[in-house]
Amino acid sequence: MNLDTLYSELTLKTKAKLALVVLDGLGDLAMRDQGYLTPLEAAATPTLDALTQDAAQGRMIPVAPGITPGSGPGHLGLFGYDPLEFQVGRGVIEALGLGLDLQAGDVAARANFCTLDAKGIVTDRRAGRIETSVCEQLCALLSKKVKKVGDAEVIIKAGKGHRFVVLFRGKGLEGPLTDADPHHEGAPIPAVEPVNKKSAKAKKAAKLVAEFYEQARPLLARKSPANGFLMRGIAHQPAIPSFEERYGLKAACLAVYPMYKGLAQLVGMTKLEGPQTIAEQFERYLKEYDNYDYFFIHYKYTDMHGEDGNFEAKKKAIEELDAALPILLQKKPDVLAITGDHSTPCACKAHSWHPQPVLLTSAFSGSDKLDRFTETGANLGSLGLFEAKYLIRLMQANAGMFDKFGA
Amino acid sequence: MNLDTLYSELTLKTKAKLALVVLDGLGDLAMRDQGYLTPLEAAATPTLDALTQDAAQGRMIPVAPGITPGSGPGHLGLFGYDPLEFQVGRGVIEALGLGLDLQAGDVAARANFCTLDAKGIVTDRRAGRIETSVCEQLCALLSKKVKKVGDAEVIIKAGKGHRFVVLFRGKGLEGPLTDADPHHEGAPIPAVEPVNKKSAKAKKAAKLVAEFYEQARPLLARKSPANGFLMRGIAHQPAIPSFEERYGLKAACLAVYPMYKGLAQLVGMTKLEGPQTIAEQFERYLKEYDNYDYFFIHYKYTDMHGEDGNFEAKKKAIEELDAALPILLQKKPDVLAITGDHSTPCACKAHSWHPQPVLLTSAFSGSDKLDRFTETGANLGSLGLFEAKYLIRLMQANAGMFDKFGA
Repeated sequence: MNLDTLYSELTLKTKAKLALVVLDGLGDLAMRDQGYLTPLEAAATPTLDALTQDAAQGRMIPVAPGITPGSGPGHLGLFGYDPLEFQVGRGVIEALGLGLDLQAGDVAARANFCTLDAKGIVTDRRAGRIETSVCEQLCALLSKKVKKVGDAEVIIKAGKGHRFVVLFRGKGLEGPLTDADPHHEGAPIPAVEPVNKKSAKAKKAAKLVAEFYEQARPLLARKSPANGFLMRGIAHQPAIPSFEERYGLKAACLAVYPMYKGLAQLVGMTKLEGPQTIAEQFERYLKEYDNYDYFFIHYKYTDMHGEDGNFEAKKKAIEELDAALPILLQKKPDVLAITGDHSTPCACKAHSWHPQPVLLTSAFSGSDKLDRFTETGANLGSLGLFEAKYLIRLMQANAGMFDKFGA
Repeated sequence: MNLDTLYSELTLKTKAKLALVVLDGLGDLAMRDQGYLTPLEAAATPTLDALTQDAAQGRMIPVAPGITPGSGPGHLGLFGYDPLEFQVGRGVIEALGLGLDLQAGDVAARANFCTLDAKGIVTDRRAGRIETSVCEQLCALLSKKVKKVGDAEVIIKAGKGHRFVVLFRGKGLEGPLTDADPHHEGAPIPAVEPVNKKSAKAKKAAKLVAEFYEQARPLLARKSPANGFLMRGIAHQPAIPSFEERYGLKAACLAVYPMYKGLAQLVGMTKLEGPQTIAEQFERYLKEYDNYDYFFIHYKYTDMHGEDGNFEAKKKAIEELDAALPILLQKKPDVLAITGDHSTPCACKAHSWHPQPVLLTSAFSGSDKLDRFTETGANLGSLGLFEAKYLIRLMQANAGMFDKFGA
């Protein structure tokens, strides 16, 4: 029997409130030059410490041993979607990241302006890294002139620097397509092709992309240095069963950055817009407490400072979250999980594969009798080492949402 | 998506050096009559202790919970080949163990001399456990008289006591075949048959074995007590993707015993011959440092003494390895893993299923803040409990050999 089917069959409706607080990139390493402490260990976290008393801890493998996830697979795992089964194309992630309101079946591409010579050879893949404002002007021009290709609507949105996103919204489209990008200078832009050559939908999408090039390229012909553009990661928004379908939970997202709102939207969560700080996010949680069953609350700064290798700033970001946490606890959810979507160790200055620590507290979590929530403590916890995709199942179980299996 | 495919797609070329030091059968049990210490815990291991400071620890399940592996599955797991997917027939393992230079497609059988009565009934399955020298004479006789069956070359090699190996090298052969062995006295030797009755290659191999019996049995007719022979575990060398193909790593083997050289050869490692002691193996590692990306260094004595139930000798073997380890550390590999291929607890006097401890150290292993590398310590480590087949993936990740998955 398929495990997801079993979980579905056992799912009961309850009135429990579940909350997932994600400190992005929380996990870190105890390194010699950090006095063998992680930022989480070095931080003063009185509120987390108090929660730990009656909580279970463990460590989660974001995708599979040794695999470093991007934010997409990292969050899909936390939401209970196997990141190997539910792969989201780069174009889709970029579109979500720019705040585009994707719909099932939309085909999205990462694009960037480039420089072409008279023969159409790519001479600079980034068009001299034009300014964002120039990119915005060019995107506005393209948006105005190319509203449709074939029977599909075209949506264009500028990103940072030379980057933008193109969305094709029509019937019977799908990705992935090969890149309209030679991936190095000195070659022309190749025509896109369906990765799966048997897919009629992908063939149609490839035809639309070709038509888009025909319409858009002449508009840029006299521009300099951005007289052409490349397209990559062309993919459709996959059909993902919604959070509510899958778990019977009405879910809300409290995130500040568009990428995470987009990922939440992908699984059908409601985006609660407005809050800009973690305190404001928790305040909003209090206000919306009665309206949803599940809250995804995303905090970006731990990852950001980890990427910079800034130990002190990451530590401080954790302390800031800890200081705001009492707001959330004014209405403590029945099940509260606090974790990262992956590790972003200061020593790596990047996402990593190291299992992130997780704290789970509920009336039925029991206590691991640990004093603090830390990476080293989490190694000793009752949750052990498990794949992140099971976190939602543990949260559901702690919420009393699963009937007994078998007699 | 298949996980191995994902790992392949994410693999990057680096200049990192990886080393795997296998203390065969390292894992042990803390028993009452051993003062609740394992040999690893009782041993003085100053060099391992120092390494532990900046290392991660965990425990590895060799194959699956409760499964005791032989050396074949044990090492295939360490090399990252799922032992359930890549099964190597017993005949092949025996042939490798006797130092035969197997080629892809060779069909190998474990064989042993037996005693038959006038009607061809097996009266002693081990021919009175004849001496090795007698076995060698009989094998020499067979080798001389039976050089070919059909279009296949026959290679015969004596083992210990009544045991030997027969190799069939020809075109279009495969195993497995059923045994030419009634598995008890009082019955005749059954004819072999393909396990997969639809395989034409296995049918051909079965025919060759029958022909081999026809030619060889008359040669032994007047010998006593070894006037017949049995054949078991008849299998072909499976097609195993090479280590370099699979991981992009040029690998070398530093082992003393033929079985381990054979297993390394099976996955395409280069055998570096010569060294007889662990100190010599480490010295050779230093000399070959620039020539390979991955070094498999095998140490037999922990297993040997575990099989004898000799706690003191196993402890001493660990101390000897620890004393030699500084040689290796003169050129510390970027990623170093130290572990066993399984446990061989003194209390069991045999291989066992107990997860073996593993230590992993690299610039990105972090520290588990443990003082020593022991079974009990490994229970607390950040690597947790995982299947041995993932060790190579963690080593690759620590070597920076994997690109990020997804955006």
